[in-house]
Amino acid sequence: MRALVYKDKLRFEKNYPMPRTRDGEALIKVLKAGICTTDLEITRGYMSFSGVLGHEFTGVVEDAGEREWIGKQVVGEINCPCRRCSYCKRGLGNHCPQRTVLGIAGRDGAFADYLTLPTRNLHVLPKNIDHTRAVFIEPLAAAFRILEQTQRPHASREESAAIQPDTEVAVLGDGRLGLLVAQVLSLTGCRLVAVGKHPEKLSILSERGIKTATKDEFYRHGGGRFDYVVDCTGSPSGLETAIELTRPTGTIVLKTTLSHAKAQSVDLTPVVVNEINLVGSRCGPFPRAIEALANGEVDVEPLISRTYKLDEGVEALGFASEKGILKVLLDMGDV
Amino acid sequence: MRALVYKDKLRFEKNYPMPRTRDGEALIKVLKAGICTTDLEITRGYMSFSGVLGHEFTGVVEDAGEREWIGKQVVGEINCPCRRCSYCKRGLGNHCPQRTVLGIAGRDGAFADYLTLPTRNLHVLPKNIDHTRAVFIEPLAAAFRILEQTQRPHASREESAAIQPDTEVAVLGDGRLGLLVAQVLSLTGCRLVAVGKHPEKLSILSERGIKTATKDEFYRHGGGRFDYVVDCTGSPSGLETAIELTRPTGTIVLKTTLSHAKAQSVDLTPVVVNEINLVGSRCGPFPRAIEALANGEVDVEPLISRTYKLDEGVEALGFASEKGILKVLLDMGDV
Repeated sequence: MRALVYKDKLRFEKNYPMPRTRDGEALIKVLKAGICTTDLEITRGYMSFSGVLGHEFTGVVEDAGEREWIGKQVVGEINCPCRRCSYCKRGLGNHCPQRTVLGIAGRDGAFADYLTLPTRNLHVLPKNIDHTRAVFIEPLAAAFRILEQTQRPHASREESAAIQPDTEVAVLGDGRLGLLVAQVLSLTGCRLVAVGKHPEKLSILSERGIKTATKDEFYRHGGGRFDYVVDCTGSPSGLETAIELTRPTGTIVLKTTLSHAKAQSVDLTPVVVNEINLVGSRCGPFPRAIEALANGEVDVEPLISRTYKLDEGVEALGFASEKGILKVLLDMGDV
Repeated sequence: MRALVYKDKLRFEKNYPMPRTRDGEALIKVLKAGICTTDLEITRGYMSFSGVLGHEFTGVVEDAGEREWIGKQVVGEINCPCRRCSYCKRGLGNHCPQRTVLGIAGRDGAFADYLTLPTRNLHVLPKNIDHTRAVFIEPLAAAFRILEQTQRPHASREESAAIQPDTEVAVLGDGRLGLLVAQVLSLTGCRLVAVGKHPEKLSILSERGIKTATKDEFYRHGGGRFDYVVDCTGSPSGLETAIELTRPTGTIVLKTTLSHAKAQSVDLTPVVVNEINLVGSRCGPFPRAIEALANGEVDVEPLISRTYKLDEGVEALGFASEKGILKVLLDMGDV
């Protein structure tokens, strides 16, 4: 099969071996896939992964032990836990130390004609979500993860309640993830501002009634102190800005992972003095993301910068890493 | 009056002006005071404070508008909030942006014959706590703050419950604060290990039945993955170690503040990938600290390295900053 493979360098292969299904797994013909910053980071050494890249996809099940899956159009959760260890038993499969992760750790990914995943990871795509929009379900779920994590505050109720209509929230970063996170947080009705560098990207949000500010405007008007600040900048300086903008006993949600510049230089003393909560945030609930796309709560189409064919994958990743580019899709061709 | 004053440099003054009480404040004759790492950090530029140092003290009220306070032996909370702003109205006076803080920000401190504090900040000392032990109430309260902050988890109950008997907890650092924090956390009955560099300091804990390990021993036995890790190292490397030791979705409590080496270099990607909670922790509940000292739950006397007279204060701070020294007290002389 065709595949986009990273091993020391990124290359397109015409005759990559077909993946083999194991017990409980489905063989999925990939229809479309999305390029994520994590894919780009892997090509810079992140996770020391080698194999087929890609973890945002939509596809159709071609084979599975559970025959009822065959022919279903699906999306899939990317973490494949062992289901036996103490993490798995506590419902923390996404943190299973033995897990494989589609296109990220120990398991070939979605930038190929075929992939395998356990059927337990699959979700049937509702008819009113097309394949293009479906590619956004994985990152959108990661955005909804923030709401899961902020529903039960770390500090006392008075100090740090969940995100509510009077909660002041700032989303930093107007990239692929930031634009999804801002839309998701706006569903809470909170007092939200999305801060970015690119007026043309921010306009995607302002057209949906979300308050936005370029970084310069924002600071010119005095910044502010927020109950919640979400760092989606993907930049080493994001956390520093977040610390500056968070009110005492407020919460910073960290979405940025970095391969290069591994150690960021940060003054964490204000985190102690202001008793700030900082919480890392990763993968989230697929069902909620599917629902949000199906009922139009979130709009993803303006986020698509360009679609490439799988054969043009190397070029596509190059384009996705250029400044100002949002989501780049790969189209695997005829179903 | 006599006072130990920091202004560009530390010096002992014989004729420092007496503090004046304002409405609602008491004039307190200081009996004993304790030297804290924060005092040492201030002499290195932390908080840009200048004035009388010191915030751990015990004393006797000499004058107050509310006459019933006069003659009372007291300890005092160090944050003096405005009691009018939105933080104060939400019960977050310790984070009031207009607050003064005894010997730390905008208010002369306790290394002097007299200090002033609002009577609302005062707590009467129970008869069975002597003045020497009473000096530990402020830092002990800061240790109890951790229990306040971990009673209501940030993540869902399954992911990150409060500290319970089966919770795995590591305290990093066997300095002044670490030894108090370990004793406080041991009260929960949790599975605790205190990790430090100094066998002679750790023995203070092991004599109380608390499991300890030197850093070398700890790593030789494979370290481990903890539900909670409390960084009391006072070192820029403490957070990095804490991140390494915390299990996915676990919590790091940060107690370390640093003046020098302001920006620490930390790889925060594991915080995101493992969805770790990181929470800054500062001042805590005096009543609980007083109770713990009064009923012997916590033992502070082995932590006293030496007592100096106020006149020897410059020397005392020098001694307190030497490696391996625990609590250094200042004795103000006759009552």
